[in-house]
Amino acid sequence: MQTFQLHPSRFFESDAQTRKVAHELYDSVKDLPIVSPHGHVDPKLLAENAPFPDPTELIIIPDHYIFRLLYSQGIALESLGIPTKDGAPVENDHRKIWQIFAEHFYLYAGTPTGAWLAHEFAEVFGVTEKLNGESAMRIYDHIHQKLQSPEFLPRALFERFNIEVLTTTDGAADSLEYHQQMRNSGWLGHVVPCFRPDAVVNLLAPGWKNEITRLGDAADMEITSFKNFIRALEVRREFFKSMGAVSTDQGVASPHTHELSESEAEAIFQRGLHEQASEKDAAAFTAHILMEMARMSVDDGLVMQIHPGSFRNHNQRIFDRFGPDKGCDIPLQTEYTKNLHALLNKFGNEKNFRLIVFTLDEATYSRELAPLAGHYPALKLGPPWWFHDSFEGMMRFRERVTETASIYNTVGFNDDTRAFPSIPARHDLARRVDANFLARQVVRHIIDMADARQMVKALAYDLVKKAYKLD
Amino acid sequence: MQTFQLHPSRFFESDAQTRKVAHELYDSVKDLPIVSPHGHVDPKLLAENAPFPDPTELIIIPDHYIFRLLYSQGIALESLGIPTKDGAPVENDHRKIWQIFAEHFYLYAGTPTGAWLAHEFAEVFGVTEKLNGESAMRIYDHIHQKLQSPEFLPRALFERFNIEVLTTTDGAADSLEYHQQMRNSGWLGHVVPCFRPDAVVNLLAPGWKNEITRLGDAADMEITSFKNFIRALEVRREFFKSMGAVSTDQGVASPHTHELSESEAEAIFQRGLHEQASEKDAAAFTAHILMEMARMSVDDGLVMQIHPGSFRNHNQRIFDRFGPDKGCDIPLQTEYTKNLHALLNKFGNEKNFRLIVFTLDEATYSRELAPLAGHYPALKLGPPWWFHDSFEGMMRFRERVTETASIYNTVGFNDDTRAFPSIPARHDLARRVDANFLARQVVRHIIDMADARQMVKALAYDLVKKAYKLD
Amino acid sequence: MQTFQLHPSRFFESDAQTRKVAHELYDSVKDLPIVSPHGHVDPKLLAENAPFPDPTELIIIPDHYIFRLLYSQGIALESLGIPTKDGAPVENDHRKIWQIFAEHFYLYAGTPTGAWLAHEFAEVFGVTEKLNGESAMRIYDHIHQKLQSPEFLPRALFERFNIEVLTTTDGAADSLEYHQQMRNSGWLGHVVPCFRPDAVVNLLAPGWKNEITRLGDAADMEITSFKNFIRALEVRREFFKSMGAVSTDQGVASPHTHELSESEAEAIFQRGLHEQASEKDAAAFTAHILMEMARMSVDDGLVMQIHPGSFRNHNQRIFDRFGPDKGCDIPLQTEYTKNLHALLNKFGNEKNFRLIVFTLDEATYSRELAPLAGHYPALKLGPPWWFHDSFEGMMRFRERVTETASIYNTVGFNDDTRAFPSIPARHDLARRVDANFLARQVVRHIIDMADARQMVKALAYDLVKKAYKLD
Repeated sequence: MQTFQLHPSRFFESDAQTRKVAHELYDSVKDLPIVSPHGHVDPKLLAENAPFPDPTELIIIPDHYIFRLLYSQGIALESLGIPTKDGAPVENDHRKIWQIFAEHFYLYAGTPTGAWLAHEFAEVFGVTEKLNGESAMRIYDHIHQKLQSPEFLPRALFERFNIEVLTTTDGAADSLEYHQQMRNSGWLGHVVPCFRPDAVVNLLAPGWKNEITRLGDAADMEITSFKNFIRALEVRREFFKSMGAVSTDQGVASPHTHELSESEAEAIFQRGLHEQASEKDAAAFTAHILMEMARMSVDDGLVMQIHPGSFRNHNQRIFDRFGPDKGCDIPLQTEYTKNLHALLNKFGNEKNFRLIVFTLDEATYSRELAPLAGHYPALKLGPPWWFHDSFEGMMRFRERVTETASIYNTVGFNDDTRAFPSIPARHDLARRVDANFLARQVVRHIIDMADARQMVKALAYDLVKKAYKLD
Repeated sequence: MQTFQLHPSRFFESDAQTRKVAHELYDSVKDLPIVSPHGHVDPKLLAENAPFPDPTELIIIPDHYIFRLLYSQGIALESLGIPTKDGAPVENDHRKIWQIFAEHFYLYAGTPTGAWLAHEFAEVFGVTEKLNGESAMRIYDHIHQKLQSPEFLPRALFERFNIEVLTTTDGAADSLEYHQQMRNSGWLGHVVPCFRPDAVVNLLAPGWKNEITRLGDAADMEITSFKNFIRALEVRREFFKSMGAVSTDQGVASPHTHELSESEAEAIFQRGLHEQASEKDAAAFTAHILMEMARMSVDDGLVMQIHPGSFRNHNQRIFDRFGPDKGCDIPLQTEYTKNLHALLNKFGNEKNFRLIVFTLDEATYSRELAPLAGHYPALKLGPPWWFHDSFEGMMRFRERVTETASIYNTVGFNDDTRAFPSIPARHDLARRVDANFLARQVVRHIIDMADARQMVKALAYDLVKKAYKLD
Repeated sequence: MQTFQLHPSRFFESDAQTRKVAHELYDSVKDLPIVSPHGHVDPKLLAENAPFPDPTELIIIPDHYIFRLLYSQGIALESLGIPTKDGAPVENDHRKIWQIFAEHFYLYAGTPTGAWLAHEFAEVFGVTEKLNGESAMRIYDHIHQKLQSPEFLPRALFERFNIEVLTTTDGAADSLEYHQQMRNSGWLGHVVPCFRPDAVVNLLAPGWKNEITRLGDAADMEITSFKNFIRALEVRREFFKSMGAVSTDQGVASPHTHELSESEAEAIFQRGLHEQASEKDAAAFTAHILMEMARMSVDDGLVMQIHPGSFRNHNQRIFDRFGPDKGCDIPLQTEYTKNLHALLNKFGNEKNFRLIVFTLDEATYSRELAPLAGHYPALKLGPPWWFHDSFEGMMRFRERVTETASIYNTVGFNDDTRAFPSIPARHDLARRVDANFLARQVVRHIIDMADARQMVKALAYDLVKKAYKLD
């Protein structure tokens, strides 16, 4: 048996001086509450507060960060129990799946998923041996047993994790019933929705018309015109706000923004309703909706987020068999300077407006995003996203962004996860990387310790609360 | 009161071995004269040699590097005393402006502006406490008092800074009267102009025709044809040369180069004169002018510089109210391999030609620029520019460029500043980063100490003199 | 005289803890056999096993990595003895050429070429003084003398270098006579060809029709149709396989993949035969051939490699006078997410298919290539290529790729060289960089020592054997 434990200095530089400073900075923020302003935890989890079924169901099956790497090494998704769209049977022996996972756990060495899992195993579940083929079943049993106890119910974990606020991501037509259920239950956990209208914004998505109908139903109106459509979005934003929402989010292939005339917008919308919209129509529509969403944010104060640049469902065979979010979304080169020009020119100087932009294209950090955020008062930079939410990725972000935008035009950390028990691991890693980044500057006498203390707290807690208007 | 002083080892790695070598290398070059071959100091400053008015006028109001970050945090430019185009009143209490700046000085922690200001405060003005809201007025008074003394007159600082040569940047139609005035005064400071024809090259710039008239006046001819126009440029280059110029410079959106036929060039020029030029015309014109400027450099030996890839005045509202250079210029993705093909094919092998290229797109360092400079004898790489003139930015440049182009196809440092008293700070930072970069290679036994000594001197002094033909 | 020797810890971090771990990891792999699955050594060298003529002929004249940097500093290729296409005379005093090289050897300080040459001089030839103008002739004589001895014959070096397998790169119509000659000679060195059809794939290349004729001759058929052409490729692949080939390779300007209909492909091919093909035709043809080559790989099991994104022969004057491979190939921005979509959708999930992709655009490492390789089972990432095969370049590759793709979707090292005696230097440098990369993770407690040992062996030996089906 290979024992395993987390090292208290993990992720810090090895030279003694930097490590000492990094520890001091990290220690000053490690116990701050977690503010999670963007993520994908299912609100049903906390509404129903039912026990997690088993380790495989909890950790492997819902997490494409994990199974994409197994798939890349030739392991069929079926053998990992990933459900098919048509209900064709897949492996349902969860111990067998866990065994495969354990035998390939070496693949995650040096990856953020590996680091998060190590933290989750050690800190959340008290695992003390290294996961591999030999230890697989012992660890499965250990975690499985924990999951039966009341201390491992979702709300108990929420409290143990010291989560001050958790934001979910919800469709524009969503009833928010689970959010309502949480409120009604008298539970004091602070969980808020985020308004994400992707399904009603992409004219060419299969099922778009159906989504428009759902949106109309939710807004209690019939959507027959672009004007109606916009009104429905406004109504729904108001509802989300009443349920505690502080933000919106949009996933777009390109961050292109461009204002259409009323008649152009209407004409495209009608072509969409008649299933005659072209790709050009769809792109123009998205560019215009980004302008409309910004305008609404100026009006209602919801913080606007954009997550651009992902080629969704790149692997058609996997999408056809298993659906979306199966590890097949691949980043695209992205341009911001020209694409955000219309939006920033119209709204970028507005006091009441806040736009948080994310990217999957690290080449834009120092070239476009930091210079834009270092000028426009409305614009703030979201933390490293997805593939870049990693030790090296976070260092690159800080190194490329800070000198031009300063840390004060960034917004702290997002865990962005659907893997609820990995939340503390993700925030801990971010706090460690930030402490290490600042420690390097302290020992090189670029900043002093007083600045560093203020900065590490800003990055862990203050900036996220301010940026998302949670203060 | 928080005391403050510069640490002698600032910016060096913290491990003892690297720091020792970095110190040794830095010490060998720190007192070398400053050669500043490209920048934006107003020649009037040194021609008139009048006292600097006050700290706010000296440090904040003219420096968009500084006030863009304040603006990004919601501080109105009016409240910082930035003059409006229409003369609408702005804050004119310079102590009040300084107080705002001091209260937000924490924003610059970890930025190059913060590092330069720290050096300037400590080394130029002898400030010994940290700038913040509490110390603001004491420091203002301290600097203000210094500025009254003869030791702080521009020429006295020039000499104290040990500037061997300072290059200004001057329009093609500029009379160079202040350069003449300096010469006439008998002052021995070496200040030379640089020929920058941007205003007469961009057909679509407002006021272009007016600039053509000014150019014609300056060249003592009427410009009615493209041929005349080119002749006027030649005449003016000759005049700049006679006033000591060794270089030209062009800021272009794209570095696209392409030779037009004589009749095409003439037709576009005529459309420009008749205000009928299209965007395509303007782009083709710039591409052709780059070819013409290269040809002229082959003829007259002036070193050619290109600064491409900035989307100027991105924030229309700020431009309309305050004009250019207000922190709203944002980099664009830039391509060099195809774009410079025509120019390098025609002139890149010429012994007498030297082209120094800059970039705001760091992705091009290792992909395009280092391979090009590692082959074409005429091409040299300018130092990290603007947002990338920073601790991390300079390290990235050296790490991405050196292995392919060697340091010997780079040209040392440019301070590129209009902030005269920050010049020593900028050169000091560059020398420290280069010493640190080379020290890392020494302790890893990639280069030996003899090589490192030669290289650190080349980077601080020899290369710039050779590249700009100042030796 | 400046003595010179390789430091045993070269390229490792200077902090004692990291260096110790790096040494331990490096020591565990430094003596593993060299597996060289892609390169440009001339098979004639090992077939004939004749002595290398002299140091200049061996080291300088054939190696554009070396002479491009001399050319960039204004040294004429003629004076370096680079042969002209038309046979116009060039310098033929090899001592004189070596003297120029030695006097400019300082240019290579901090470059991979400098590091490889240092290793080659010390380890292969036992040189003990530093190369410069003063030592030039002594070192020339020293190496020259060695080259006369049987220990320095190509096959003796092959064995001394501990090369387990060496792959050459060979045209589709190549007779592989030298490979046959090696086999017939009874020599046991394992040297295999790689099928590279570039010359028959690019419709617009001068001499394409001639190459098609050669291909037909080699395949013993007349190529009059696209169908015939594809058949000829299949026949030749079969022949290469019979001669030990395990892989194919293609150099393409863009990695665009797109399947044409049979009639479209035929029409374009016929336009090519009639010298009427357009640039668009040529691009479409290449995109289709990549699909065909993938299909054939699924059928015959040859590993497919793509080397995209080089603008070949950028300097027309040099190309016209000296031909290809003269240091004038410059990288281009490259896109993979959209361009590989067709190929990966059709073949990326195939068990029997393996595609190894290279890039000259480092911006694609974390943005496109690592996410693609972290999902598609058929796709693996080739090591840093050409300009990026360097100390910093390899570190960047590992830092940007590992967290998303894991090391297990990469394929170890390629030396990719035509400079036979530099092969051990290149593998040694790669092993050192990988050991150092992993040591940094160990001392920061990101991975443990057991993982690191397995990973360093995988990177040095296991992955390349598996990826290229050499196990």
